[in-house]
Amino acid sequence: MWHIYQFPLCPFSRKVRLLMAEKGIAYELQSARPWEGEDRFFAMNPAGCTPVIKDPDRNIVLSDSRAICEYFEETVDRNPQISGTAQQRAEIRRLVAMFDENFFRDVSGPLLHERMKKRLVLRQSPDAKALREAMKLAHDYLDYVDWLIDNRPWLAGSTMSLADLTAAAQISVADYLGGIDWTTHEQARAWYLVMKSRPSFQPLLSERMEVIQPPSHYAEVDA
Amino acid sequence: MWHIYQFPLCPFSRKVRLLMAEKGIAYELQSARPWEGEDRFFAMNPAGCTPVIKDPDRNIVLSDSRAICEYFEETVDRNPQISGTAQQRAEIRRLVAMFDENFFRDVSGPLLHERMKKRLVLRQSPDAKALREAMKLAHDYLDYVDWLIDNRPWLAGSTMSLADLTAAAQISVADYLGGIDWTTHEQARAWYLVMKSRPSFQPLLSERMEVIQPPSHYAEVDA
Ligand SMILES: N[C@@H](CCC(=O)N[C@@H](CS)C(=O)NCC(=O)O)C(=O)O
Ligand SMILES: N[C@@H](CCC(=O)N[C@@H](CS)C(=O)NCC(=O)O)C(=O)O
Repeated sequence: MWHIYQFPLCPFSRKVRLLMAEKGIAYELQSARPWEGEDRFFAMNPAGCTPVIKDPDRNIVLSDSRAICEYFEETVDRNPQISGTAQQRAEIRRLVAMFDENFFRDVSGPLLHERMKKRLVLRQSPDAKALREAMKLAHDYLDYVDWLIDNRPWLAGSTMSLADLTAAAQISVADYLGGIDWTTHEQARAWYLVMKSRPSFQPLLSERMEVIQPPSHYAEVDA
Repeated sequence: MWHIYQFPLCPFSRKVRLLMAEKGIAYELQSARPWEGEDRFFAMNPAGCTPVIKDPDRNIVLSDSRAICEYFEETVDRNPQISGTAQQRAEIRRLVAMFDENFFRDVSGPLLHERMKKRLVLRQSPDAKALREAMKLAHDYLDYVDWLIDNRPWLAGSTMSLADLTAAAQISVADYLGGIDWTTHEQARAWYLVMKSRPSFQPLLSERMEVIQPPSHYAEVDA
């Protein structure tokens, strides 16, 4: 069975967990705190990031969440999440990159820094200005999701894909950390409620990260 | 024919150009300066980044360099750059991510900011401390390349792959900007000289970015 080295609020690990659950691939969670700089963790991934996945029986270790997702797409046929024509697949991967890079840089990354790292590692209080800025930028991304969902059934086209899993993973972390104001984002909200209702999402919604509690709407699927 | 919207020192555009040249796909360069925030450019790529590629005849627009590279791998069989078993392909993609994300964050990105953006956009002089830090971190990545080349013919295994193209693209930008000290990196240097000698690399080495000149060794392939 695959082991996933991760921590509950790592959005890249959440994406991998959603993909594995959608494809019916079993896994076991292993706790990793990349910021602690443990040698054993860096030996598995010199980039020093979660997630890392490992199959101890076959001694396979993989890292980088996009490389991992492509690996499962190539090795497990069930429920493909990067499918369609080459152009449709490029559209899926474009949106994956936008959420993993831009949304993480502007929204989920700063929220994790201010609300999680400052609390657990730096023992500082969050910077109100940085939090406001991340929440403001979150609106621009949700506007873009509204627009996509106005034009397509799912983010990248006519079927659910890795783009939806990636966006939902990143947004769920921002939502946990109180960074998302859903009012005025009807389409994005409706899409996200559908994502939250999927069985693959339930384990994520019930997890809690130590001292940080999510807002009450976070785990509600009928709100 | 494909159009690539880029600027000469964008490492992600360089990767796409190398891949297209290796696969024998013709392209035409179009100049783009993402930091100028032009509406026409954002309409093509809401993430606001270079490269963007466009086929005007078929009205196809693609962005995100990894999505673009996967697209060409899927549509053009010649000279595959993401090949082998699923595990080998995951290793290629892991290294692509390491250079595009970590090396860019630590080395080529800060060098571009200090030496190009500050000159062209902000009209400031570079910060000596930031330059020193980027050059120091470059050594760690070159140590890793030394180690890889000690263990394998090419970065990701027994054949040249997108990992080599990506690493060479990122390193070439850092080298242009004077950020690479090649002494003490014998293996990395030998590998990079082989990359520089490839026909696909020649157009990159002969280009210059306005007011910024590279060090004399930059374009030498027999040094
Ligand atoms: N390219 C990586 C990025 C993963 C990433 O940035 N993970 C964060 C945690 S959310 C991390 O481990 N950062 C290093 C740290 O916090 O020290 C992926 O897609 O897996
Ligand atoms: N995920 C993108 C990242 C590309 C990227 O970061 N490009 C830089 C230029 S090297 C950019 O356009 N930055 C925006 C700016 O400078 O305003 C890709 O792989 O294509």
